[in-house]
Amino acid sequence: MIDILIDKIIQMENPSVVGLDPRLNFIPQFIKDEMFDRYGRTPKAVAESYLMFNKAIIDEVYDIVPAVKPQIAMYEELGYIGIKAYMDTINYAKEKGLVIIGDIKRGDIFSTAESYSNGHIGRLSIEDEDYTIYNEDFITIHPYMGYDSVEPYIKDCKEYNRGLFVLVKTSNPNSGEIQDLLVNGQKIYEIVGKLVSKWGEEFIGKYGYSQIGAVVGATHPEQGKDLRQIMPHTFFLVPGYGAQGGTAEDLKDCFDKKALGAIVNSSRGIIAAYKDDKYKKDYSDKEFGKAARQAAIDMRKDLQEVLI
Amino acid sequence: MIDILIDKIIQMENPSVVGLDPRLNFIPQFIKDEMFDRYGRTPKAVAESYLMFNKAIIDEVYDIVPAVKPQIAMYEELGYIGIKAYMDTINYAKEKGLVIIGDIKRGDIFSTAESYSNGHIGRLSIEDEDYTIYNEDFITIHPYMGYDSVEPYIKDCKEYNRGLFVLVKTSNPNSGEIQDLLVNGQKIYEIVGKLVSKWGEEFIGKYGYSQIGAVVGATHPEQGKDLRQIMPHTFFLVPGYGAQGGTAEDLKDCFDKKALGAIVNSSRGIIAAYKDDKYKKDYSDKEFGKAARQAAIDMRKDLQEVLI
Repeated sequence: MIDILIDKIIQMENPSVVGLDPRLNFIPQFIKDEMFDRYGRTPKAVAESYLMFNKAIIDEVYDIVPAVKPQIAMYEELGYIGIKAYMDTINYAKEKGLVIIGDIKRGDIFSTAESYSNGHIGRLSIEDEDYTIYNEDFITIHPYMGYDSVEPYIKDCKEYNRGLFVLVKTSNPNSGEIQDLLVNGQKIYEIVGKLVSKWGEEFIGKYGYSQIGAVVGATHPEQGKDLRQIMPHTFFLVPGYGAQGGTAEDLKDCFDKKALGAIVNSSRGIIAAYKDDKYKKDYSDKEFGKAARQAAIDMRKDLQEVLI
Repeated sequence: MIDILIDKIIQMENPSVVGLDPRLNFIPQFIKDEMFDRYGRTPKAVAESYLMFNKAIIDEVYDIVPAVKPQIAMYEELGYIGIKAYMDTINYAKEKGLVIIGDIKRGDIFSTAESYSNGHIGRLSIEDEDYTIYNEDFITIHPYMGYDSVEPYIKDCKEYNRGLFVLVKTSNPNSGEIQDLLVNGQKIYEIVGKLVSKWGEEFIGKYGYSQIGAVVGATHPEQGKDLRQIMPHTFFLVPGYGAQGGTAEDLKDCFDKKALGAIVNSSRGIIAAYKDDKYKKDYSDKEFGKAARQAAIDMRKDLQEVLI
């Protein structure tokens, strides 16, 4: 699966992923009005708004970005009806040929991780019937509980050609509180990085990168550079560009000399571009999808300028 | 909420919680047959089986145990239809007066944590309407990303009288891989324990325990003892008893001198008791609820013997 992702990145000359993290205040009023009229001011109306919004964004970006990353929290917040919208979003994006990175950040003991893995990247077996439930290509997971909490996902990656991005160094302001602590001269995130690198050794594809990747935040440039050296065969999912403050310059050392090795996420900077001063003079609320497309093109250009 | 939980523990003389972690092989054949007949061998049939199973267990234990802990992974595995069974299970258990510990182990950046928190322990606001979605009393969360990833939950704990159990030392075999690393003579789990203790300082209730609790596995007795001393005002959720190998003797130092300070989880040891050699001679498949009740009574006795 990492080879498929990298193939698409090369083909589209675009190492970026659109974060499908809808929020009610990102949704244009005309969509909300339609859904509130139909379903009232209910979780169902919000879930249907998110789905309609996502589909319009996907329609506008699927030919210029290799992947989308729905953040399950925004859907889970709405209850089961939101999880249905998460699943429908994934199905729609897959039909359009996009690679799906499910940002679920699960982490639990072996037997529980098996359930998460079955549902998200493996198979649910019911007697003699097998079901694919969420159908993400990659998911994000927590490493804090150690190898046995990660093992079921690794097994399914092998069996069903899926991939992982394991949290190594996150993009949030307090990420250093635990991740930067020093153990015999090494930071925790470096130790976790080495573990993730080891877990991925047997899954290295044709570009020299493993199916077992790492989350490395764009907001910590020195640490990204450090991790790129420590983990030469680990592909990075890089959050924190744009709204969280990370610039293309900040994250360029997450890439290798061939401008590969990482994929950069932007969520609200793309999907809510129509609300941004930079785009709103050119795009109306009804053209939110077109604004997202332009923002995705601008992001690609911004990344290309530092990488090539 | 921690006071309500401790009130119930004292009243029932029972510091234990029943883990509602159904799996298809725990469900008696007569329930599966009924649901497969009705819905085919589908995720819907499994979700309905879990709900029927859970309700029967709840009916048999609500007067002798203070709390239940549904593990969301087993429901999430089934897709949105499973999440509906998770929500219905919580609603049913609440009607019976049980305290709900949602074992969700979420952990993400601030803005994403807000969504999880709104859905699970806070409120979902849709324009001028407020919704309670999952309605757990407590949830479990990951601390690896630092304070800002925890802050939204703490805010909702204050606003809606809810509680947290933050992962400090987990019960799984490889938990030491990261959690036991030494930083200036202190283990990571001790450092995390101190952080959790600090985060909970302003939420200490009438029994001297905070609404912000910790997950401390029963499978590491020395570490439980250590953490009990480091975190005198932090209430512990203790997994790992029974099926994972932890004994009452192993976990007794997680309690204080008044036999308070912790609640011990058992999942398959209770809910699948009817399949256990110890109980199956006395209980048929149809009496799985009665077997669970007896197992819960036996667990209470086992804990009381070491605590009093």
